[in-house]
Amino acid sequence: MATILIVGAGMMGSALAVPIADRGHTVRIVGSPLDRDIISSLKSQRLHPKLRLELPSSIEPFFDDELERAAHDVDAIAFGVSSAGITWACGAVGPIIRPATPLFMITKGLVVEGGNVVTLPDAVKARLPASVASSIHPAAIAGPCIAGEIARKVPTCVVLAGRDRPSLERIAQWIETPYYRPLVTTDVVGAEVCAALKNAYAMGIAFPAGMHERGGGTAGSVAMHNLESAIMAQAVLEMRRLVRVLGGKPESASGLPGVGDLDVTTNGGRTGRFGRLLGLGLSRNEAIEKMEGATLECLEILAIVRDAFASRAIDDVLTNYPLLDHLAAVALDGAPVDVPMSRFFGPELTGDSA
Amino acid sequence: MATILIVGAGMMGSALAVPIADRGHTVRIVGSPLDRDIISSLKSQRLHPKLRLELPSSIEPFFDDELERAAHDVDAIAFGVSSAGITWACGAVGPIIRPATPLFMITKGLVVEGGNVVTLPDAVKARLPASVASSIHPAAIAGPCIAGEIARKVPTCVVLAGRDRPSLERIAQWIETPYYRPLVTTDVVGAEVCAALKNAYAMGIAFPAGMHERGGGTAGSVAMHNLESAIMAQAVLEMRRLVRVLGGKPESASGLPGVGDLDVTTNGGRTGRFGRLLGLGLSRNEAIEKMEGATLECLEILAIVRDAFASRAIDDVLTNYPLLDHLAAVALDGAPVDVPMSRFFGPELTGDSA
Repeated sequence: MATILIVGAGMMGSALAVPIADRGHTVRIVGSPLDRDIISSLKSQRLHPKLRLELPSSIEPFFDDELERAAHDVDAIAFGVSSAGITWACGAVGPIIRPATPLFMITKGLVVEGGNVVTLPDAVKARLPASVASSIHPAAIAGPCIAGEIARKVPTCVVLAGRDRPSLERIAQWIETPYYRPLVTTDVVGAEVCAALKNAYAMGIAFPAGMHERGGGTAGSVAMHNLESAIMAQAVLEMRRLVRVLGGKPESASGLPGVGDLDVTTNGGRTGRFGRLLGLGLSRNEAIEKMEGATLECLEILAIVRDAFASRAIDDVLTNYPLLDHLAAVALDGAPVDVPMSRFFGPELTGDSA
Repeated sequence: MATILIVGAGMMGSALAVPIADRGHTVRIVGSPLDRDIISSLKSQRLHPKLRLELPSSIEPFFDDELERAAHDVDAIAFGVSSAGITWACGAVGPIIRPATPLFMITKGLVVEGGNVVTLPDAVKARLPASVASSIHPAAIAGPCIAGEIARKVPTCVVLAGRDRPSLERIAQWIETPYYRPLVTTDVVGAEVCAALKNAYAMGIAFPAGMHERGGGTAGSVAMHNLESAIMAQAVLEMRRLVRVLGGKPESASGLPGVGDLDVTTNGGRTGRFGRLLGLGLSRNEAIEKMEGATLECLEILAIVRDAFASRAIDDVLTNYPLLDHLAAVALDGAPVDVPMSRFFGPELTGDSA
């Protein structure tokens, strides 16, 4: 059995501990400086206050200043922080990580560095000390994974995306349970582009629910489901195109990282609520205010992606992505919701020849 | 302006009349022998009793025995019947259809004829009189199109799939409105395979809702959404594979006919309710009984497809489609729901190399 260190004790990081502990491994969770209340609660009563769940006793909690002790003799390290916490996590782990340590993370997304779009696994590698970076191949988990469900052992399949297949196979063996099935893929670009963009697109898929309500409609089988589904299909089409342009495999957009994660993000959570408010006719600022400080990943990724088009870090034009273009205008510039359906799906339906 | 004859006055056929009439065309709707109550209601008060909506006065209703008069000098014919009504529709229209008449339909699906899987547009062509068949190129509409929403002008995009692009372009021009956007495609196989199979797969996507309820869970953001979305992604993967095996374009499964129609079918309607009952633990027969005689397209298509694998009309083995295999076992043989997640997505994630 292995000893796995999870860095970051938020909902997703802590949820990841459950299948790993279930496999019989020792799991140590180190909170970030922002997680001190969570770690206190875990230490005193094993209760994770955000997951509202008691974690198994085989999961050992540590404060951030106990990292060195927690990291002693670990077989692998997992980042359980959000993208905002990745700089802290890299800085904290850098001095103690040994060469060739398997490193995986629930953190995902895209950043622009040196004029290029870089996936988070590659960005993390670049932030590791030179002495270890060449032998470490960070992997990211994508696909449908609501934390509260994973912690409660609701079955799911995810992808584990990285550039080194042997590391991936090793990590997958550690974390796989009958209810948590990681499929390995080396299509890091495909997995990460979808993981990042699904937040933006889920916002758009939620517009019709708000539009329907705004028109006096109530929930039911006749609402604006057709439009929701047309937007979803357009989202997958645009994700396929962007994945291809950035050098990944469009099939990832049709699979767990794209269709799967987009569907689950649409079915629950903040992004959908935010999109619904915009569809209701609230201005961008009114909608943000109503969200009462909730993190809105959609805003962040839309800004990153639009800048990347503008700077040519993405070698394509945003007008080839009419839905994404509109989402950025609504969420960043305060444009009113006006789904550009007449620009969807053309001229070649699949976009594959474009 | 054109005169369009719609054959079949059910919800979908009548809904299709709305955008066409909105474009200023004359629309005549002929009911099937089963639609006499609907036609009576339309004649007396313009009310469509199933759509619960008054249709525009420019839509003229006709009983089945008035077909000849209704068909006088029409520019195009549309089939608005379900697949069960297609034999009647072909028989009724055969004697009066003129060569080169544009023919399109909301009817969709697959049949097995002469040892081969045949799409409904091709099956319809084969049922037309020899004197006209060679000059008629039937087209089918697929994609997200809940009838009650189209009749209420809720925006959507659909595909219009046929083998003759000029006919498609002509039909598309007649029926397109700002809220009803038909995209033409010659990928008849892709569109029809997805249109048929989405009913079966939507049943499976609804299993987790029932499983969650069976375990004492209530609706909410933590339920079994991860599993639903993993099943949806697997459904798209299997549709892509089957489309390819039958000679179509897998991109259709990632677009409106696949992702789009699958999503909308999951969000409303009979198939989802039936799948939920199975997920709750009801036997096949108990679930069918609870549906009180509602048409369950999923049962029909699962039987057709399983037979097609068995007879080698589909040149592949059903074990390459673990989800479809399980859906058939549950819906046809009464096997208990037991989602075969361990067989999903392997060995190559995308299945594209298989």
